[in-house]
Amino acid sequence: MRFHTRKWIKPEDLNPNGTLFGGRLLEWIDEECALYSIVQLENPKTVTKYMSEIDFRSSAHQGDIIEIGIEVEKFGSASLTLKCEVRNKMTRETIITVDKIVMVALDEAGKPKPHGKTEIEFVKDRLK
Amino acid sequence: MRFHTRKWIKPEDLNPNGTLFGGRLLEWIDEECALYSIVQLENPKTVTKYMSEIDFRSSAHQGDIIEIGIEVEKFGSASLTLKCEVRNKMTRETIITVDKIVMVALDEAGKPKPHGKTEIEFVKDRLK
Amino acid sequence: MRFHTRKWIKPEDLNPNGTLFGGRLLEWIDEECALYSIVQLENPKTVTKYMSEIDFRSSAHQGDIIEIGIEVEKFGSASLTLKCEVRNKMTRETIITVDKIVMVALDEAGKPKPHGKTEIEFVKDRLK
Amino acid sequence: MRFHTRKWIKPEDLNPNGTLFGGRLLEWIDEECALYSIVQLENPKTVTKYMSEIDFRSSAHQGDIIEIGIEVEKFGSASLTLKCEVRNKMTRETIITVDKIVMVALDEAGKPKPHGKTEIEFVKDRLK
Amino acid sequence: MRFHTRKWIKPEDLNPNGTLFGGRLLEWIDEECALYSIVQLENPKTVTKYMSEIDFRSSAHQGDIIEIGIEVEKFGSASLTLKCEVRNKMTRETIITVDKIVMVALDEAGKPKPHGKTEIEFVKDRLK
Amino acid sequence: MRFHTRKWIKPEDLNPNGTLFGGRLLEWIDEECALYSIVQLENPKTVTKYMSEIDFRSSAHQGDIIEIGIEVEKFGSASLTLKCEVRNKMTRETIITVDKIVMVALDEAGKPKPHGKTEIEFVKDRLK
Repeated sequence: MRFHTRKWIKPEDLNPNGTLFGGRLLEWIDEECALYSIVQLENPKTVTKYMSEIDFRSSAHQGDIIEIGIEVEKFGSASLTLKCEVRNKMTRETIITVDKIVMVALDEAGKPKPHGKTEIEFVKDRLK
Repeated sequence: MRFHTRKWIKPEDLNPNGTLFGGRLLEWIDEECALYSIVQLENPKTVTKYMSEIDFRSSAHQGDIIEIGIEVEKFGSASLTLKCEVRNKMTRETIITVDKIVMVALDEAGKPKPHGKTEIEFVKDRLK
Repeated sequence: MRFHTRKWIKPEDLNPNGTLFGGRLLEWIDEECALYSIVQLENPKTVTKYMSEIDFRSSAHQGDIIEIGIEVEKFGSASLTLKCEVRNKMTRETIITVDKIVMVALDEAGKPKPHGKTEIEFVKDRLK
Repeated sequence: MRFHTRKWIKPEDLNPNGTLFGGRLLEWIDEECALYSIVQLENPKTVTKYMSEIDFRSSAHQGDIIEIGIEVEKFGSASLTLKCEVRNKMTRETIITVDKIVMVALDEAGKPKPHGKTEIEFVKDRLK
Repeated sequence: MRFHTRKWIKPEDLNPNGTLFGGRLLEWIDEECALYSIVQLENPKTVTKYMSEIDFRSSAHQGDIIEIGIEVEKFGSASLTLKCEVRNKMTRETIITVDKIVMVALDEAGKPKPHGKTEIEFVKDRLK
Repeated sequence: MRFHTRKWIKPEDLNPNGTLFGGRLLEWIDEECALYSIVQLENPKTVTKYMSEIDFRSSAHQGDIIEIGIEVEKFGSASLTLKCEVRNKMTRETIITVDKIVMVALDEAGKPKPHGKTEIEFVKDRLK
């Protein structure tokens, strides 16, 4: 799994108990999956369709740095299934894992649109 | 299921495709479940432990009003299991459902703390 | 008065003195009145025209849960006059009251538009 | 009346109808009054106690620049009464006026604390 | 240099170490320069093109009030060069200075557009 | 240069002209540099001290994905000098470059504190 985006836990990311607000974490994961899928499927109109169960294994505190990892599980015809893990950058402790996040590429009318991709591409190869 | 909190979809809640940003919706659900559990369990240190699979059935647009419904599924000794549905206030179309959200009441040390509750209480009865 | 929307006071809602930032509270009230009016008047282009005097009776702290109540005072031809109260969910202490908030339904050109309503409707009755 | 702070209406400040969200405007006014009072009363623990009626006379759109003006109405023993006007920087059209905003200086225990001020001071004179 | 806009440091403006988040300060400066230039050049499509080196001389803490000062350095044909200083309202301590910020007025196609201005105008004179 | 964090341009990141708000971009860069330095210097109290001139070479639009790259220029005794580039993920067009960003590690009293580092370390090596 490759870990790209990192976040620095700031006061505005905390719940009133002083730990990372779970809703904020889910927001970050959803954004990261959208980002990843848009780049892979080359379709900016790619949306989250499904998330499998989410287990909050540990929390994080103000000043902690977390990183969000994404891995491709499967290419469907109009979909892309991802796996996601969030961990603490310094301790490597896992905060959350989501085994299956299904992203779907849409056409202008909002219907699933085949993307023709079958494997991960790195942008630098694509641009050659 | 009782629907309490309502949200008005504003520009800051949209993804770049102009529909409700899924991450924002998850953030709202998580906050609503925390609110509900804190009031029921009378313990402000109540956190999200688990969410079952999430199916994004429809989206919402700028200016739409959505409402978030919560229902209790089960009282554990230190936990409370909720069910959540989000729907469009006018059309009653369902946007998302989450069958099982486990909230856990914690003590000062962050360990699960029995709450002694076995059924829903309405604050007005409690204050009598 | 019916209390719908609830808010959980998070660090981002505090003023530098550590109590609920009054401006945030006014923002929440304005949003709640807009929501309520849009649903009642069935016109998404409904705006705040007037608020009567506001008395800040008590404050709230991080982690508190507050709820916002709305009551209809009067139906005008293009307007709806509301009354609002915000209170602490657990203690039932009143934080703020606003006796009169006038909302106006507008047409496409931004002019007042008669809404034809004379009493509160519940969406579930309307959809029957 | 002196106009200090200016705001640039950005997408995140709009309501779903595309005009300046009234709640955001109230938030800005409250912050500006707090700022002004803290500097005048030399007490950082100064809070909003009362606002007289608010008349929304016109709105503003994305990209508009508005400015917020404050004027002192009266010095009480622990309070400061302000008057506020918000207008469009280019057209000078008035957006909102609030005739009376009462700010109160508090002591550590949250009780009103006499501030000993009877007239406006400019910080540059105070520092001489 | 004239100091217009003031900001009150709230919890959401802090970095995890509890001092003013530098990124937030840069955001405020950029907004203030845009505001100032739009009013002076009478072109809402005015953007930041260049900032000279930035020296963070001191920080600020929660509850501090800072003010942002702008001064015109030079009028170009399509540009406006500003100088900016941010200081603490009470202590007058300088937090940051930026000697040169170049703003450029653009036409509809995004190309530099001559503004015909050669000196500062006060809006009140312009409206006479 | 390694590009880690990616951002998806959402409505709340735009200026009123519909392009990426420069202030938001500076905020992201500052956060990324802080993150990077904290991990490298193993000192959470690391702050931005200086940024060299910033040239805004191109902009970005809603829905664009940008990525932020960081490179170490020099290790000082208590400082770390970074170089930063932000580019469009798909087109690889450069949006902004900052040649020199000086971060300083501080001790509890806020004084520069030697960090003892002389080269980049990868966390995975450090944890072995």
